[in-house]
Amino acid sequence: MKGIGTSSGIGIGKVFLFKEPELKIIKKDIENPGLEIQRFENALKDTKKEIDKLHELSLKNIGEKEAEIFIAHSMMLEDPEFIAGVKDKIENEKLNSEYAVNEVVNFYVSLFEDIEDEYLKARAVDLQDVSKRLLRVLMGIKSADLTIIDEKSIIVAEDLTPSDTAQMNKDMVVGIVTELGGRTSHTSIIARTLEIPAISGVKDATKTLKHGDYIIINGDNGEIIINPSSDEIKKYEEKAIELADFRKKLLTMKDRESISKDGHKVEIAGNIGTPKDIDKVIENGGEGVGLYRTEFLYMDRDRLPSEEEQFELYKIVAQKLGTRPLVIRTLDVGGDKELPYLSLPKEMNPFLGYRAIRLCLDRQDIFRTQLRAILRASSFGNIKIMFPMISNIKEIRDAKAIIEEVKEELRKENIPFDEDIEIGIMVEIPAAAIHSRIFAKEVDFFSIGTNDLIQYTLAVDRGNQDIAYLYNQYHPAVLNLIRMTIENGHKEGIWVGMCGEAAGDKKLLPVLLAMGLDEFSMSASSMLRARYDLQNYSKEEVQKHLDTLLSLPTAEDVEKYIDENIIK
Amino acid sequence: MKGIGTSSGIGIGKVFLFKEPELKIIKKDIENPGLEIQRFENALKDTKKEIDKLHELSLKNIGEKEAEIFIAHSMMLEDPEFIAGVKDKIENEKLNSEYAVNEVVNFYVSLFEDIEDEYLKARAVDLQDVSKRLLRVLMGIKSADLTIIDEKSIIVAEDLTPSDTAQMNKDMVVGIVTELGGRTSHTSIIARTLEIPAISGVKDATKTLKHGDYIIINGDNGEIIINPSSDEIKKYEEKAIELADFRKKLLTMKDRESISKDGHKVEIAGNIGTPKDIDKVIENGGEGVGLYRTEFLYMDRDRLPSEEEQFELYKIVAQKLGTRPLVIRTLDVGGDKELPYLSLPKEMNPFLGYRAIRLCLDRQDIFRTQLRAILRASSFGNIKIMFPMISNIKEIRDAKAIIEEVKEELRKENIPFDEDIEIGIMVEIPAAAIHSRIFAKEVDFFSIGTNDLIQYTLAVDRGNQDIAYLYNQYHPAVLNLIRMTIENGHKEGIWVGMCGEAAGDKKLLPVLLAMGLDEFSMSASSMLRARYDLQNYSKEEVQKHLDTLLSLPTAEDVEKYIDENIIK
Repeated sequence: MKGIGTSSGIGIGKVFLFKEPELKIIKKDIENPGLEIQRFENALKDTKKEIDKLHELSLKNIGEKEAEIFIAHSMMLEDPEFIAGVKDKIENEKLNSEYAVNEVVNFYVSLFEDIEDEYLKARAVDLQDVSKRLLRVLMGIKSADLTIIDEKSIIVAEDLTPSDTAQMNKDMVVGIVTELGGRTSHTSIIARTLEIPAISGVKDATKTLKHGDYIIINGDNGEIIINPSSDEIKKYEEKAIELADFRKKLLTMKDRESISKDGHKVEIAGNIGTPKDIDKVIENGGEGVGLYRTEFLYMDRDRLPSEEEQFELYKIVAQKLGTRPLVIRTLDVGGDKELPYLSLPKEMNPFLGYRAIRLCLDRQDIFRTQLRAILRASSFGNIKIMFPMISNIKEIRDAKAIIEEVKEELRKENIPFDEDIEIGIMVEIPAAAIHSRIFAKEVDFFSIGTNDLIQYTLAVDRGNQDIAYLYNQYHPAVLNLIRMTIENGHKEGIWVGMCGEAAGDKKLLPVLLAMGLDEFSMSASSMLRARYDLQNYSKEEVQKHLDTLLSLPTAEDVEKYIDENIIK
Repeated sequence: MKGIGTSSGIGIGKVFLFKEPELKIIKKDIENPGLEIQRFENALKDTKKEIDKLHELSLKNIGEKEAEIFIAHSMMLEDPEFIAGVKDKIENEKLNSEYAVNEVVNFYVSLFEDIEDEYLKARAVDLQDVSKRLLRVLMGIKSADLTIIDEKSIIVAEDLTPSDTAQMNKDMVVGIVTELGGRTSHTSIIARTLEIPAISGVKDATKTLKHGDYIIINGDNGEIIINPSSDEIKKYEEKAIELADFRKKLLTMKDRESISKDGHKVEIAGNIGTPKDIDKVIENGGEGVGLYRTEFLYMDRDRLPSEEEQFELYKIVAQKLGTRPLVIRTLDVGGDKELPYLSLPKEMNPFLGYRAIRLCLDRQDIFRTQLRAILRASSFGNIKIMFPMISNIKEIRDAKAIIEEVKEELRKENIPFDEDIEIGIMVEIPAAAIHSRIFAKEVDFFSIGTNDLIQYTLAVDRGNQDIAYLYNQYHPAVLNLIRMTIENGHKEGIWVGMCGEAAGDKKLLPVLLAMGLDEFSMSASSMLRARYDLQNYSKEEVQKHLDTLLSLPTAEDVEKYIDENIIK
């Protein structure tokens, strides 16, 4: 059996087959709508209690960010339109609560599902999760429960919802296998967060695997071995130990410098999304934060964060990092990351639309509040400001002018800030890379955002399954743009970093070293590995390959050339 | 008064104030639904007759392509869901036809308008146009009529629908002023097609201007002069004569070569969308067709065009051009150009999605049929094949392999074709321009598609009003990519053309000449002007400016530099 490895590592244990009890909704005529409404309201209350408990469990087992979803769930149960819709069906159509709830939910879900909007689609999934819980409460069916797992188990399920993962005891769950989902599904993200090996997209897993089967899963290649021989178990246990040993070896890299075989020093930093993430960056020996994605501060809430709220959070992160640099990216919403309370326009091509710096220069109220918060925090650490989605120099000049105005305000108010704060841009739109020689004159640093740079350079929405095969970080045009950006930055005397996924790519590491990249910013879990690998490569030696590499026709040729001539 | 000039030229004449009579829909209870349904059915028939007449008028006054919309209108009146919806309201709710029609139409329109889909939005506008006609017929109100214009007049309206423009007598209408719309609105496109000066976006035009007012409009700068003095009239009449004289002078350029002041020869060609357009290219002295957009063959119909249909059309165009080159671009749909009968997936970012060559390599049935038709037609003229949306070399190799297979089929069937047919690609995705040195080894020619190249290089959907200001063909990054593409093409010995709107831009003409562009393909109406301008520039002289020009920081700097140092 095979699937897609979505969280690395080896898991060995017994199958815990996880199936939600099926809910059969039966239509009944009721005689006393008043009583039925009472029953519905009681169920709402009980369901809310369950959700509050899940919130607590989730806080304990997973994390703050992940627990927030249950606040949203709880709010859904208070939605007046939803409640009125159900009551109306009970009162006027004399329907039983179960049937009424199911009808109303299906109506909303069908509305959401038809609309091409990732945010609403995710809400549809949440709504189904909540409504199933409500229906179970109404029907007196106990929900399947993952808290009862008390021996090393591998969960096998169709897919897991936030309600399910909240209940997982991370000490007992040694693996997850699901039929649905891919690398970006909820289950996969949680598995990686908790460092539990996981495999998705395993067809018929819940039918083929039996509760109690002993299995081995390999989250790196997606392999599943059912009822392995004792030899196999031994082999994989050894492999798991090897991996653990390697992890220990990596830990010794923690306080070392990031230095190549021929003595070239770079900086290995972490990308973070919430202030909490900073602990993992520090634990893993990050030399700074190359990308603090501030949009999470603005999401999953119903209004803009205040200057004070932002200031406090930026300050905490800056203080924890001490003298190490903290690059804060200003708000990058629009496109895939919508904020309902801003009521942004619906767009035909949001990735080519009104977002990030474009929105900030237009909605200066939002921008100024954030800049004030960042500048105020800058007196507590080594903060740098970075603008996303820069496509022309006027945008840089306009944004810098606003920073100057905010600085002047702060001076007048006698509020301290770092007068020499560095200002940089994301190089993620082809225009910025192509004209980087001139852009470099306007800023203190570049950070190459490969995820978007690849999307625009190849005209591929990587979230679109039909053409995702075209998205490739080894495309020679992309590598040429990266090299051009680094060289032009250096010609103008500024440092150049990278904060897209390519920065953490094993195969690209030597290539980027050879190109002269100064800072590699990646997920915290990749940093030690990168520092370890770095010692094996000589910058000068790899440089000899660059011209050949960048003149190869296709991405496949590039990857093959790296495999055969560069990688160690 | 001022607006946006959307069709060039000077118009002098009396205001013909065009307002549709307002329709007051009153709700009535009817007693005999059978009779009312009869009345509704009669109105449907009468409306259809009116639409058939408009179709005829449109064929005569405007053209085949523009007349097709009335076939769609007529089909809407036959839509069984629509008819059933209205009848249901008459029968079961005892409503009068007017009210029932209005209700059903509003329901559909609200559905369409909420969906972010240009195609459906356009259908909503059509539906409103048709339903207003139907309501007028039901209410016995005569529709405002543009056929009655019998003296030189300037139409002033909120906006014009296809039904309105179909009725215009182009000999009497010397100008159009509308409150709504922009360069790409229906009215503007028709005005340019008919060469009638036009201005859009004039606020309160229908309130400020009175029927019978004497006005002058300048479609080049959007100016409107109300009740001009006799001096002003004289001045503008002279200007109009000057323009007419200049047009005559341009006509003398028709059979000349396209040659610069210093004797450098290029090719000036036309872009066409339908076989009919070829006549205008030939009339205006086109040296070939640099872009035949074949997607119009696939649009506004309910199934794929057959090989035979395509072959006949390609053959006609090739024959009319004789030895002059005809570059046929293979199907470029998806994104903004949907084909309902292909039921393409709804995408979050269609411009970065499944379209053009990506679709053709996936749907080889469609691709092979088109390639067979093109190859068969190639024995009747000088045809070249061009692939759109190429982002990597594998796509070129795959497409060429399919051409080889189709050629082999034709050989076996003893069907003649041009064995040495040239194969090229659109350079419109940044990756192709950046890696053009290597892409050039795989093809016989490049054609730079500036419209998309700008969109992707700057990450701007130019159809998105909120950020369209960022779309700029003078952006130095774009010009650098163009230069790079031309130079790399020449290094590998292939010719390089351009078929985006930039090819017809007055200011870019000398710059592109200096970069060495071999072929300029533009709308037929711009060709003579371009050939005329070309004689004023020396390639060698402008070349001296290129390095400076391409190192300027912003698009505004570039435009200013051209204005001050290059343009004549």
